[in-house]
Amino acid sequence: MNFTSSIFSTETMIVPGGTETILRGGRDLFPLLPEALHGVRRIGVIGWGPQGRAQAKNLRDSLAGTEISVTVGLRQGSASVEDARSHGFTEENGTLGDWLAVAADSDLVILLIADAALAEHHREIFDVLKPGATIGLSHGFLLGHLRASGSDFPVGHPVIAVCPKGMGDSVRRLYEQGATINGAGINASIAVHADPDGHATDRALAWSVGLGSPYTFATTLADEYRSDIVGERGILLGAVHGLVEALYRQFLINGADPVTAYRRSTESVTGPIARTISESGLPAVRAGLSEVDQDLFDRAYAAGYGPAREIIAEIYDEVADGTELRSVILADGRLATRPMSKIGGSPMWSHSDAAHALRDSEPAPVDPVTAGLFVATMIAQVDEFAERGHAWSEIVNESIIEAVDSLLPYMHARDVAFMVDNCSRTARLGTRRWGPRFQAAYEQLALPGLDRPADPALIKGFLDNPVHEALAVAAKLRPSVDISVS
Amino acid sequence: MNFTSSIFSTETMIVPGGTETILRGGRDLFPLLPEALHGVRRIGVIGWGPQGRAQAKNLRDSLAGTEISVTVGLRQGSASVEDARSHGFTEENGTLGDWLAVAADSDLVILLIADAALAEHHREIFDVLKPGATIGLSHGFLLGHLRASGSDFPVGHPVIAVCPKGMGDSVRRLYEQGATINGAGINASIAVHADPDGHATDRALAWSVGLGSPYTFATTLADEYRSDIVGERGILLGAVHGLVEALYRQFLINGADPVTAYRRSTESVTGPIARTISESGLPAVRAGLSEVDQDLFDRAYAAGYGPAREIIAEIYDEVADGTELRSVILADGRLATRPMSKIGGSPMWSHSDAAHALRDSEPAPVDPVTAGLFVATMIAQVDEFAERGHAWSEIVNESIIEAVDSLLPYMHARDVAFMVDNCSRTARLGTRRWGPRFQAAYEQLALPGLDRPADPALIKGFLDNPVHEALAVAAKLRPSVDISVS
Repeated sequence: MNFTSSIFSTETMIVPGGTETILRGGRDLFPLLPEALHGVRRIGVIGWGPQGRAQAKNLRDSLAGTEISVTVGLRQGSASVEDARSHGFTEENGTLGDWLAVAADSDLVILLIADAALAEHHREIFDVLKPGATIGLSHGFLLGHLRASGSDFPVGHPVIAVCPKGMGDSVRRLYEQGATINGAGINASIAVHADPDGHATDRALAWSVGLGSPYTFATTLADEYRSDIVGERGILLGAVHGLVEALYRQFLINGADPVTAYRRSTESVTGPIARTISESGLPAVRAGLSEVDQDLFDRAYAAGYGPAREIIAEIYDEVADGTELRSVILADGRLATRPMSKIGGSPMWSHSDAAHALRDSEPAPVDPVTAGLFVATMIAQVDEFAERGHAWSEIVNESIIEAVDSLLPYMHARDVAFMVDNCSRTARLGTRRWGPRFQAAYEQLALPGLDRPADPALIKGFLDNPVHEALAVAAKLRPSVDISVS
Repeated sequence: MNFTSSIFSTETMIVPGGTETILRGGRDLFPLLPEALHGVRRIGVIGWGPQGRAQAKNLRDSLAGTEISVTVGLRQGSASVEDARSHGFTEENGTLGDWLAVAADSDLVILLIADAALAEHHREIFDVLKPGATIGLSHGFLLGHLRASGSDFPVGHPVIAVCPKGMGDSVRRLYEQGATINGAGINASIAVHADPDGHATDRALAWSVGLGSPYTFATTLADEYRSDIVGERGILLGAVHGLVEALYRQFLINGADPVTAYRRSTESVTGPIARTISESGLPAVRAGLSEVDQDLFDRAYAAGYGPAREIIAEIYDEVADGTELRSVILADGRLATRPMSKIGGSPMWSHSDAAHALRDSEPAPVDPVTAGLFVATMIAQVDEFAERGHAWSEIVNESIIEAVDSLLPYMHARDVAFMVDNCSRTARLGTRRWGPRFQAAYEQLALPGLDRPADPALIKGFLDNPVHEALAVAAKLRPSVDISVS
């Protein structure tokens, strides 16, 4: 997608089939932020989850020394008040207050409360906004909810989104690394949904640069919503969980001991496979294997691609249709009386510590079957997004870069089940809903297909896939810094 | 639920918390059918799937010698024409014709085409009906579809449902056995949705008796739809498939050879556990175990009940909300270009023959963990239905009798995957959707809980469950004939 800015120097990126406008970020652009924010003197960040905390702190730091303030708004009695105070947002210095008061007082109101709370309370917030105040979102959930309930954003307000392609913790941590390495940060997409005063794009770009995004690209709120929700149910979380559960059991059945089975499934994906893709792209995973293992990779790829694509198409349909959102809302009703169970008790996770302890002495192996199934699922998501018309920047960020540079390194540091049990409620519900579908597809359809030679057309489809070109272009914007997890 | 008939002698059944009216069937009632059908001279059966075939043949046989005819209506070019002819429904004798012509010509139009076809074509059929013709359904799908699309049944027509609690094949086969054993047949529920002429209940009862139902009870179309769709996604199909996949792998991991693992999972459920419940009720499964195995049963029951209940509540919410139906319609769109994959290639099914071959020499064991998890899931569905206010007759038929007297014996004769790959599209989609959720819940939540002593409150909740009383009353209506599968 293309856009123009009167403040920032954008670049044109050549992608398969066309071009996309992008903005390369960096701390050298911070002096442009006040002008680009155009009329915004007070930014209100509503909510203090991982995204709220990261965004409030990054924006405060990026705007230090300007006349633009960043204030955090929380509900009466919020459990987060103490944590916000400990990070310097306090009533005393005027940067912490009741959420409706902060919303009423801000020129840019960034809504980062949980989806369920947003569904319940957005109307109260809209009602107190100043005339012409900009509504800011970090994903498209609210648009989906408004459409499903036959409602819309209030007229006369710019509506923009800046959507970091990584967890809140990564958004803060990479920003901090940006103090020494200019351009370190998490990529973000922007969407301009309503632009009554003509300055919405520049405000969105300023917000993105202020968060530390090294690479900002454009999408629509609807496309962002779809790729975001499908992605987390797919290769980012759901498919990874389903894959490692299926493979761990399969390796045990084939005679491996638990720690070896863990290393060939989980460690293989979160460690060397993720790192290879991040540094050298997808074909490099295959190229790094021996000839015998390449054959196994190809068989796994060919057996896994179709079943994975089938589920991703199903998820996409349900997300686009609003069915998936409806399920989340129904689940919220049940969870009010019956809390969600945790999956960290699944047997494989009891071997995390033992597997992690081996890392120094014995690097995790790249299992060729694990690699083939993982890469097949990633390409299946890429192909589905491409068929549905998403911008290439969005495709590579939502299907590859966010996976290998943000989520998988986090899972490598903790483990997959910890990540599932501790992500946002919408993501957690989706992972619990779709992860088992992937697991069953790998077990019942893909793994039994390993004894058949790979369909050469599928392997050619992988090696010649246009995504490699798109990823190579995007990778040039990647700062030379590895993500770290505290 | 209670109802009255001016033709048949109904009985009052005492169920937990009240009474329900039921009608005991039998061939001795066939002479009452013409009067009970009240004005119906021509019955049109639209569709020739397993239900269409069974119902057309049973009604033709039951009404033989009366002036009431049964005609089958099929679409131009239907692949079923030859089969219908071979069963004696022919153009020559006036009992086979174009579906719209047959619908236009009948006094009772029984709609037994597939759900997707019904969703697409019901309006054309409604448009050709005679004034006052009765619309007959065999499950509540169309009501759900009409509600979801803001539509309704045409005014002035009686709308009734007769819903056999078993597969079409069983409906025919047990009816045939009824020739020698009066009262053999598949139980059915009736629902009277619209009754403009006051004869709808008697017509529904006559249809049910004519199908051979030994035990007819009343429900509403909405309750029937919910319990039917939830039941097949739950204990009837989805949960069974998820359970045996999880257990088969678990037994392999614990060192069993494949045939033993198959016997302790699938054979155990489809054979002795189903038979014991059918003959002696649920507590008999536990009572038949050794003391050591009872402890294992209890642990499995207690660990499995909560996770199973959680998923059944989720399914119920989605079915009641229309979300599940929406998913089926979305899937139909995808399946038009990409046919559904089959799950019969999952490794365990390659051992079906070897496991079946052992039956004579070595009866299948009752594995206590398999039994505990299966019974826990059955009770979870019973409890969820009871909490949602379903009639006890519906609860025991949809959660227990249909399972142990129709579906599990069929799976015992073929295998579980064959059943899943060959059931109705709505059921197949639902099983593929929810089976893996049950599997993951057993693997990740229930099985890891086996090392904890059972919560005595859950075991007491099982042993004192009111369903045992309801099932005992219902079981008295069971003919002394075992289901057979050709």
